[in-house]
Order: sequence, then structure tokens, then C-alpha cells
Amino acid sequence: MSSIGLWLVGARGSVATTAITGLLALRARVIEPTGCVSALPRFSGAALPDWDSFRIGGHDIADLALDKRAELLTEAGVIPHRVFEAVRSGLSSVDSEIRPGYHPATHSGSQADAARRLADDIGDFAARHELEQVVVVNVSSTEPVFPSLPEHATLKALEAAMAVPGRTVLPPSSVSAYAALRAGCPFVDFTPSTGIRLPALEDLAAGQKLPYAGSDGKTGETLVRSTLAPMFTTRALTVRSWAGTNLLGGGDGLTLADAEHAGSKLASKGRGLASLLGGEVTAPLHIDNVPDLGEQKIAWDHVSFEGFLGARMSLQFTWTGYDSALAAPLVLDLARFTAAAHAAGSVGPLPALAFFFKDPIGTAEHRLAEQFAALTDWAESL
Amino acid sequence: MSSIGLWLVGARGSVATTAITGLLALRARVIEPTGCVSALPRFSGAALPDWDSFRIGGHDIADLALDKRAELLTEAGVIPHRVFEAVRSGLSSVDSEIRPGYHPATHSGSQADAARRLADDIGDFAARHELEQVVVVNVSSTEPVFPSLPEHATLKALEAAMAVPGRTVLPPSSVSAYAALRAGCPFVDFTPSTGIRLPALEDLAAGQKLPYAGSDGKTGETLVRSTLAPMFTTRALTVRSWAGTNLLGGGDGLTLADAEHAGSKLASKGRGLASLLGGEVTAPLHIDNVPDLGEQKIAWDHVSFEGFLGARMSLQFTWTGYDSALAAPLVLDLARFTAAAHAAGSVGPLPALAFFFKDPIGTAEHRLAEQFAALTDWAESL
Amino acid sequence: MSSIGLWLVGARGSVATTAITGLLALRARVIEPTGCVSALPRFSGAALPDWDSFRIGGHDIADLALDKRAELLTEAGVIPHRVFEAVRSGLSSVDSEIRPGYHPATHSGSQADAARRLADDIGDFAARHELEQVVVVNVSSTEPVFPSLPEHATLKALEAAMAVPGRTVLPPSSVSAYAALRAGCPFVDFTPSTGIRLPALEDLAAGQKLPYAGSDGKTGETLVRSTLAPMFTTRALTVRSWAGTNLLGGGDGLTLADAEHAGSKLASKGRGLASLLGGEVTAPLHIDNVPDLGEQKIAWDHVSFEGFLGARMSLQFTWTGYDSALAAPLVLDLARFTAAAHAAGSVGPLPALAFFFKDPIGTAEHRLAEQFAALTDWAESL
Amino acid sequence: MSSIGLWLVGARGSVATTAITGLLALRARVIEPTGCVSALPRFSGAALPDWDSFRIGGHDIADLALDKRAELLTEAGVIPHRVFEAVRSGLSSVDSEIRPGYHPATHSGSQADAARRLADDIGDFAARHELEQVVVVNVSSTEPVFPSLPEHATLKALEAAMAVPGRTVLPPSSVSAYAALRAGCPFVDFTPSTGIRLPALEDLAAGQKLPYAGSDGKTGETLVRSTLAPMFTTRALTVRSWAGTNLLGGGDGLTLADAEHAGSKLASKGRGLASLLGGEVTAPLHIDNVPDLGEQKIAWDHVSFEGFLGARMSLQFTWTGYDSALAAPLVLDLARFTAAAHAAGSVGPLPALAFFFKDPIGTAEHRLAEQFAALTDWAESL
Repeated sequence: MSSIGLWLVGARGSVATTAITGLLALRARVIEPTGCVSALPRFSGAALPDWDSFRIGGHDIADLALDKRAELLTEAGVIPHRVFEAVRSGLSSVDSEIRPGYHPATHSGSQADAARRLADDIGDFAARHELEQVVVVNVSSTEPVFPSLPEHATLKALEAAMAVPGRTVLPPSSVSAYAALRAGCPFVDFTPSTGIRLPALEDLAAGQKLPYAGSDGKTGETLVRSTLAPMFTTRALTVRSWAGTNLLGGGDGLTLADAEHAGSKLASKGRGLASLLGGEVTAPLHIDNVPDLGEQKIAWDHVSFEGFLGARMSLQFTWTGYDSALAAPLVLDLARFTAAAHAAGSVGPLPALAFFFKDPIGTAEHRLAEQFAALTDWAESL
Repeated sequence: MSSIGLWLVGARGSVATTAITGLLALRARVIEPTGCVSALPRFSGAALPDWDSFRIGGHDIADLALDKRAELLTEAGVIPHRVFEAVRSGLSSVDSEIRPGYHPATHSGSQADAARRLADDIGDFAARHELEQVVVVNVSSTEPVFPSLPEHATLKALEAAMAVPGRTVLPPSSVSAYAALRAGCPFVDFTPSTGIRLPALEDLAAGQKLPYAGSDGKTGETLVRSTLAPMFTTRALTVRSWAGTNLLGGGDGLTLADAEHAGSKLASKGRGLASLLGGEVTAPLHIDNVPDLGEQKIAWDHVSFEGFLGARMSLQFTWTGYDSALAAPLVLDLARFTAAAHAAGSVGPLPALAFFFKDPIGTAEHRLAEQFAALTDWAESL
Repeated sequence: MSSIGLWLVGARGSVATTAITGLLALRARVIEPTGCVSALPRFSGAALPDWDSFRIGGHDIADLALDKRAELLTEAGVIPHRVFEAVRSGLSSVDSEIRPGYHPATHSGSQADAARRLADDIGDFAARHELEQVVVVNVSSTEPVFPSLPEHATLKALEAAMAVPGRTVLPPSSVSAYAALRAGCPFVDFTPSTGIRLPALEDLAAGQKLPYAGSDGKTGETLVRSTLAPMFTTRALTVRSWAGTNLLGGGDGLTLADAEHAGSKLASKGRGLASLLGGEVTAPLHIDNVPDLGEQKIAWDHVSFEGFLGARMSLQFTWTGYDSALAAPLVLDLARFTAAAHAAGSVGPLPALAFFFKDPIGTAEHRLAEQFAALTDWAESL
Repeated sequence: MSSIGLWLVGARGSVATTAITGLLALRARVIEPTGCVSALPRFSGAALPDWDSFRIGGHDIADLALDKRAELLTEAGVIPHRVFEAVRSGLSSVDSEIRPGYHPATHSGSQADAARRLADDIGDFAARHELEQVVVVNVSSTEPVFPSLPEHATLKALEAAMAVPGRTVLPPSSVSAYAALRAGCPFVDFTPSTGIRLPALEDLAAGQKLPYAGSDGKTGETLVRSTLAPMFTTRALTVRSWAGTNLLGGGDGLTLADAEHAGSKLASKGRGLASLLGGEVTAPLHIDNVPDLGEQKIAWDHVSFEGFLGARMSLQFTWTGYDSALAAPLVLDLARFTAAAHAAGSVGPLPALAFFFKDPIGTAEHRLAEQFAALTDWAESL
């Protein structure tokens, strides 16, 4: 009895594959919803669509079928064998709903054409399955930082530029956001890419009366940082430096070792820390590609702080996580919360979803506990 | 223009010496109030007594004068040389306000006699300096666990037993609490010792219309735990084990290496973790005496947790702090907040002060962010 | 073309199962000998028996068949699926060579009877397969500390006591050692249990002209300690404290959480550290049972040291290992080296094998690099 | 009764100041020689000059007098107050032996002129104090990587180029090395700068019949690496990645945060690791400037390794040290060992001193234990 679509941009990536596998496994009752915030008892009263309500489709520029990708994640230890066996055929079925993604290097014609095609894919999906709503979530690879252009200022200027054949006025994430909005769908950005964060697109969302959320899912080091930083500030302890190193394997490590791609990720992380601590602090941060770690992500942070009478103290932590396993349930949560917001008529940014993001849109609140309080208050009001 | 007394039980210990040194240094404007929660801008509107309002006295069974103790802490790196020089004579002056503490081993007569003498010391101090209020804070060494006795149930039974010469019906911390209440003073327990936590004494506080707070200052590992644990629960991540090791030097290490004394401290820490995580979890915990660490305290925690699809992940942290430097400003904060509560007519436990304690009296709230929110709400209402 | 027997005491435990699985996999050429010291190029010239030379049997008090045990280890992530599939039938075949172990609780009659039965099992195994030599390696669970008795002083006194029905003069590990020697087999103790370390048994080994080695395989925290400690001593840096915590899951965690069993393990670890640092040092050490860790073993060590001008510095490390995967290849190495020593006519303790042990028999050398040099020199001389 | 000169290039830097302070304190018997390798009992039989034999001078481009620099290090916690008081006047006296260093930016004329002046300074120092030998040790700041030039190939070509006014054919460290050799002095490079490592200068040393040693003192992360790496290789464990992060305060952090200067340091560290592990391995390495750490240096390393049956395991360590306190005693050790080598007629590189260096000259041996064995063997042969 599905009536809501979840359309994933980057539908064959690690995060999407894990999310889809998990959703099918939840439906098949072969796993518990560990890591799913929306499944906490305190949200049981909120008007959230259940796991059975969702039908999945998406875009991807990659060809490797979803079940093959899931097989690799099973070998890498992210998906248990028994779960993979239980959902293997379901994955093949979902894979048939994935359409080719947009990438400037392989596209001829205007970005307007590209966006129209993407929007049509979503529209066809909705029509084919008689869906009442479709939530679009971007979980594709992090893009290099895209330059700010004057055409981003207004929808009119943007659409004029998009109509010029061969002109690349938007990065792929923003083309996807544009297409989603044009197709009448809320857009959620789980990556630090530009996505919807352009005045022209924000205007379009307002015009279309659609909600949106983002950006950059908070799954590891930043999750811990947004938890710990308020400890120092509420205890009046002065943080003097906060150094961090991230070791990433998998495709993410490869993408982010490229300094251009890492740019947006590092900026996103840095903004949060300064905001949490109430000002700039020495905070060197590195992302290293360490392929042998596979799907694992290891972060080491060293915080040097000062207390009473100038006492010099420190806190260091090491986080060892599986990025896809941390991100996937949040993607499902975001689909549920955003669908509910859309159904309730919310328009514009959804600051109540800041709990999920490194660089939340529509709020300056980075403290995890306060974000959770805001989420629960909002969910109760739905 | 002092008009409030701060009476410290254990006034010549590390924590008290650091707190007194800091208070004198704050008054002399030679340090900033780093680590003082009550000095955060958000409390500037609250009706809190300022640093100049306090006059200090106390009990201690130790003889080493306050300025000598401060000199040792200066050599140990806890107090900067320039601060010590600035307050040295002030410390001598405070030392003259310290009276012999009570200890069963050196006391003959009844505990009622002892309590009367302690209460008289506080009363004399108040009279001598024309103080409007005196707040009593216990910062003495952690006691061994004291057995529960039927006489603790009612004030009448307790006082009858206290009157029997040679009978030890209360541990020293509770004798101090009794004396404070009899002297008309609010009582704050910064240690995990029994203190005021007996029905008979809680009745006495109610009868005397006095507020009280405790227990066991949250200064290190537990501070971090109460910050991090909600991250797991709000993210629906299942904590499977949380192991901890504490390395302590100084007198604290020596006291707590004695398994009997450690009993109350470990119990206090364990209660918090179970409450934070919503149930029991494998949580081995050790306190080791490592004299070469001096005033430093090092804690290592390893948290093993489970995420989506059963993914096994971990977080470990190492905390390196100076216990006295962390505790001392909180003692001053508690004096300010408790004096304000007393002045405002509060009676009974002060759950709004849970932010400061490992094992808060009057509330089951252990989450640091929620405790801080409760503190700020309450302070604004004063 | 097997001609050497490897007889494992505790043949159905984790370490044995992993070692047997690995040996079968090495023979089947489905794995590389990673972790096998004897397979290093520098030992290619030594006269060591190859993987194909060994036939395996053993004793165990547990009933769970070897292939079932291996299946559990496969689920726990210690044995890869493809390896398990490749050796499954071989494991069943080895399981048929396992005979019931000895345990006082289930044995009636004298320990002499028990030892005779154990020796006969080994003898039958050798005869059945026409083996030239059999090396006995104890990899059973760590025993509680066994009291020292006067009867341990001489072989005559010991055998007289063993002949008394119902008398328990030896722990099981020593009964196994006695049986091995009586069967004409070298004995290697991979555990901290008493084993061969009794004057009476050492005399028996000498009389039987047999070599022996032990004790307590060095696989984790102690391996790192024996590597790092010489760094401090050769750099003239003074170690002031060395604290350690071990988190163990699996059966090992359960056994060692029992303080009596941990006694022998902790003593074994402590002896090494004092020897490495040239004297006693504050060195609290804990072993905690953390079942959720499964086969994983996590150790945290904190070393506080002093340098020039009294500078206070520290080194801390966290080791995350799979105990069985670390121990198993060493068991195979010890079988090869000990068989070669036996063939070469060595009698008595084999100090050259100290490289493998926490508490080496026959030498006070605990430094890993020096142990390795001794091993290579000795191996070349074989 | 001084008869040996110790001439420090960078004589007013942190390392030199700490070394000089320490030497004076050792002579005054106010400290123990903790951290001094040459003071270990096992070198008591070697023909090493004692602490009283040395007279100190040096070059520096900085003006801040030695006693002022020592005062800053005292405030930073590197030098104890009582030690500073004991040697303060001695420091002033040494400061009068420091001559202006050479820097291209402030020098007009040829590098030959500069070198002549530097050599004359050393010669005057030796004559003034009737010294039999002078050992020159470079402890100045790390230089940017200097390009390789054809003129470095032969002494003749080099001297021709040095004679050209305004031409910078050598970095300052190499000008110092040249001057030292011309003055008849052994040269030791404690930094990763080019120094003596040019064919032309090595020829000069041979021609002058002088020994030399270097380079880059091994004091922290690399010390631990050269200790731990052999553990993996001798246990046949495969290191898959070895990531490192260094947090540095003080002048060193500032210098090395400049990517050009860090170049030589990172290259030096990387060479050692590849050599230790027998091949290239993924090994990202960072040096961050974290000013609030002051003289402290913190390194975090994460080693991912593979064991039997492909088991994935890890070791991570955090090193917290005071760089100057670690380096200073080694500078004194190198003065003693090099003076002894010179007295014994050694010519050319001194590979036996590899124990002290990250990037040893004259040997490919990076394993700490083997380096120590080589040092002791060599010292006994002196």
C-alpha cells in the first residue's frame, strides 16, 4: 500500500544501497530499526508514514546494479549475509526504478533540458505508482566547490542561463534540486554539495510551496563534536584548539582526498565548530584516503582546553564507525519527517531537522541536544 | 562588604584550597572566572551574590595551613606562581577561620556533642562576621560506604542514638550535614559520601526550612559520559558496553584505591550511566592509584555500540584533567546558587543544581544538556 | 606424507580451532601464512618441517565438534567464509582424532590413572599414523592458580602422590605435561597455567631427554609492552607508571573475569614488565569481561615517563586485536620450531623460543627485538 | 678543566637552550642525567668525555639572550624554577660566546666570505679556551627544501660557486657544515636540513679526516615508529596503513606549518617508515601548528594491520612529549660520542649513531633495538 515515493539521487552508492537494503529488511521484519531516530518511542505519536508506505526510485550515473553493490557491501561487512539474502530480489526490483543521472561531462544540450528530463523521470515514477508525494534525497558523491555566479541570484536569471546549450551554470546537485522542485517534490540534501542552497532555488521552493532540508548528514566526527562542544561552553571551559584527522576508505576516501571535493566538506565541518564554540579557534582538520579501511571511518580529535586558574587540560577521542551504516537510517528518517512536513503544508527550510546535519539550513543551532529538543517539539506539532 | 559565609568541610584539602585561592584571586582581579558556570553571561541577570560577598571558614581534621597547602599545589602546577603570590597573605587570614573537624577516631563523647560543637563553630563564624547566611559545602575526602541503620529513618530515632556516648550512628559527612542544618545553613555535598542523604536529615532540612544539594561533583569522566550518552540514545544507537578506567594521583588516588572508599564513588558513577542509557549495560569501571600523576586525573572510556543492520562501532576517549581545577570553580558556583536559593526561600532538594553532580539529589535527570537547561530556567526564576 | 604429530590440549577451543583451520588452509593453498613467524624468509634456511608434515589430534573436555566451533568463529568474523568452506570436511576428519580431556571434577580414580590414559591416547595416535614425533601444545583455558605442594619437588614424591586415588596433586595442565613427557613428547605451554613448571616435571623432561617451552603466548598487550619498554630504557627515560586495561569477550573474558583464573595471567604479565623496566613500577592492570566484544580483545595502556630536567610526558596506546588470529599462527610456529629442536636432540627448556611467550621459561630476556635475534641465531644453528 | 668545545648552530633556540641549561645543571649536580643515553651504566666503560670537559659556544641569528630564552622555557614548564636559578649566571656567561649566525637575507658578499667568518668564530673560540677539539652540532630551525645543484657534486665546483658575490649556492645549514669542516671540526646535524649531505661536503670531510653524523634527531613519533614497526615485521603481520598526525606548538609548529619547511621533515619521516616495513605503505602524515600547545608535541598514529586468516586489527598511540626536553640530552650525547669518535680517529659518516636520528647517514638501519645494539658495540670498541 505504498503511497509515498523516496527518490534517491545517487541511488546506487553505498549510503543509498544500505538505506534501501535496510528499508526492505525493516519491511520484511528481519532487522530492528537500530539507528533510526524516527523509530524511537517518543516519535510513536507523530504522524509519520510507516516503512511500508515507501516506494523507492532514483538517479545514478553509475551502472553497477543495486544487488551487486549490496553484495560488495555484504563482503565488506556492512550488510549481514542473512539480510542480503532476504532482500536480494527486492533490490533487483528497486534497481529497475533507477534512471541515468545527470553529469555535465556526458550531457550535451542545455542544463534546462537535463533538468526537464530528471523531473520527468520523477514524474513518471510518481504516475506509474500513483504516489501522493515523492521526497527527493541527494546522497550522491560530494562535489567540488562550485563557484558563486550572478545568475544564482534570481530564478529568472538562472533559468535564462540554464537554457543556453553547453552552459554549466549549476553543479549536478543543484540541477537535481531544481528538477525535484519543478516536479513538485521536497528536496533533502544529505551531502555538503551546493544543492538547493542558492537564492534562485530557494525562491523556486517558496513558489512551489515546498519544504526542503539539509545539508551534509552528521554521522561521525561532527556528531561527536556537536555533542561535546556544549560541554565546554556550558562549563565555562575555554577551548584553545580542536584538531581533527579523518581516515576514510571506500569511495568517500577517494573523493575527499581530492582537495577540491574536500573543500566543501571541510568548510561544512569548520562552520559548525566555530558556531558551537562561539568564535574561531585553532582547528586544523584533515581527511585522508586510506583504502584498506574499506567502509570504515576513523576520526581522531584532540581538544586542548583551559580551566580555572589557567589549568591546561585535554580531551581526545577516537571514533570508529561505518559511514554507510550511520547515514542510511538517517536517510530513511529524513524521508519520513520530510514527507510528514510536506503533508502538513510546511514550506521553505525545515530547521527542526538540524539534528541530522553538519551544516543545517535555516538555523544556527549546532548543539545536538538542543537540536533533538527542537526535533521532538516540532514532530509533536505535526 | 561580605555578608555571606562559605563554610567548607575539608577546608584544607586540594579542592577547598584551590577554590579559596581562586576566590581570592577573582576578588583581586588577577584571574578570569574560567570554569565558573555562574559567571557565564547568561547568568548575569540572575540574582547571584558576587565574589566580594563571601567570607570563608571551615572545618578540617588536617593541620597543614592553607597557605602551605597552596604552596604545594603551586609546585604541582595547579596554581600559577603569580596567583599564589597575590593571595598568599589572604590564605593565612582564611586559615585562621578554620576549626578542627570531626573524626570518630579522635572524638570521645557522643556524636550529639560533636555535632553541637561543629554547629557552634559555624554559628560563631556567622556572628563574628555578622553574616546573613552561611552555605556549608562538604569537600572532604570520600568516606567508606556507611551501613544503613534503622536509626536513620526518623529524626527522633537518630537524635536518640546520637546522644549515646561512644556510639557512631552517622559517618562524619552526615554529622557535618546535621550540624549545618542545626546551625540554620543550607548544605551542599560535593562528595559521594552519605552526607544529608538520610530520611532523618532530609526531615530536619524540611523542618528547618533549608535547601540542600548534592551529590558528588561531576568533574571528569562522568561529565563526559553525561554529555555523550544522550548522543547514542537520541540517535537510536544501542550501547553494548561502556568500560572505564580512572588513573588518579594525589590524595584522591590513595583514598579511592582503598576499595571501601571507592565503593561509594563507583556506585555513584554506575547509577548515572544506567539512567542515561535507559537500562543496565556491561560497564566495568576501575579507579587506580597512580601517585606519579600528582593532581592529574586521566580517564579512558571505551564505548562499543551497535548501529543499523547490526554494524559494530566504537568510541573511545581519554580525558586528562586537573581534578582540583575542575572542582574548585563549581564549589564557588554552588555557593552562589545555593545562597540565592536560600535567600529566595527554597526548601528541600535543589534538583536544578543537578548539572553539577554525578548523582543528583531530587531528580533522575543525568543528561548534561537537559541539566543545563533546567539550571538556566531555574536561575532566571530566582 | 605426514610424519609429525601436533597434539593440542584444548583442541576444540578458539585458538586450537583457528590454528587447525589455518593449517588446513595453508596446506590447501587458500591463504598466505600471514602472522606465521616461521614462514618469514629469514627462516627459509632452517630445518623446519613444512605444513604438510603435520597430523593433528588432541584432548578436550568440550564436546562441540571442531567444524561446529569453526562455524561459530566464521560467524564471529575470525575465519573467512571461503576458508571455512575449503576446510570444513578436513575439520571433521581432525575432530575424529580428539579424545576426552582430563578434568578432576569428572574423573574418578587416581591422577596416575588419568595421566596414563592421556599418554596412551597420544601413543595410540602416534602408532596409528606412524608418526616419528609428536609435539604436545597446551592451548586449553587458563586455570586458577594451583597451590605449590611439597610433592612437586621431586618426581618420586610426585608419582607417589599421583597414585593415591581421589588425590588432586596436580592441576590438569600439569597432568597433561606429565602425560606428554611419559609418552616421549616435547611439551609447549601456550597458557599461563602451571603446566610443566614444577621441579618434578622438569626432572622428568631431563630424564626423558625431551625439550619443552613456554609459557603464556605473547599475543597482544604484552607483545606491545615488550616492544615499547626497551625504547624507554635505552633512551634513559624513566617510566613512572604503566597502567593497563584489557577488555575481553568470548570464553577468555569469562574465564579471566574470574579473579582466581586472572591471578596467573596478571602475575605473568607483571613479571615481564618489571623485568623489562629493570625494577618495580606502579602498574595497575585489569582484565574485564565484555561479552559483546566477541573474539576481539582491546587493550589500553598509559605510560607516564620522565625525561631531561624532570619533564613529564606520556605515551598511551590502544590495541584492537583478534586473540585467536594472533595466537593460532604462533601455535603452528611453535610446533615447527619445537619439532625441529626435538629432532636436533635438544633437551630441557628452549629459551630461544622466548619470542613467543609472556613469561618465557629458561631466560630472563623479555625484550622483543633481543628475543627475535636469539630466535634467528638459534634457528640457523639447528 | 674543559678541553672540548661544543659549538651549537642555533645556540639560542629551544633545543640549544635546554641542552646548555641541562649541561650546566649536570655539572652543578642539581639534576640527574635522565634522558642522557651516554650516561647509561652500559656506557660507563666507554672512553667518553665527561660533563665537565665541555665548553660551549655557538652561532645564532636571534638576539634574545640565552638566560632570557631559558626564562621563557621556565615559564613554559620545560625548565624547573630551581634549575633555572642554579644556572642563570652560567647561561649569561655562555651567551657571551655566541656569535651572529649566517642568513642569506642579511648577508652581503659571497658565501665563501660568510663561511670564512663562521669558521674563524669557531677557531677563535677554540684558541681562546685552548680546546683540543670542537664538535659542531646544528640545532637551528628546519630549512625549506633546498634545490639540488650541479655545483654540489664536487668540492671544486662548490667552492668556485661560493666565491661568487651574491650567489646562494648553499642553504645556511650547509654553509655551517662547510665552515665546521674547514675549521677542523666534526659536524653533527640534528635537523632534517641539507647540512653536510652533499657530495662536495662529504668529500671535504674525508679530506679533512673528520667524522660526521646526522640527521634529524629522533625524539617523538618516529622514535615510537622505529620501535613498533619491527614488532609487525618480526611477527609476520602485514601493515596495511600507518597514518600520523603531529600537533606542534612553539616555534617548531610555526616553522613546520609552512609547507616548504615541512617538506624536508615529512620526507625524512617517510623514508624511515618505508624502510622499516620493507616497502611502501599508505601513510598519510600531517604536521599542524597548534600554538596553544607551547613546547608540547602531540602525535597520534593509527596502524591498520592484517594477521592470520586475513584478520583486520589496529594499534593506535598518542605521544605527548616536550620536544626540547627530548632533544636536549641527545645533543649532549652526540657531543660526547662524536668527540670520542674524533679522538679515536674516525673519519666519514658515523652509522653507529643512527640510534639518535630519523634519517641516519651511512646506514639503512632504522630499527631502534638494532641501532642500540650497534651503538653499544661501537662504543665498546672506542
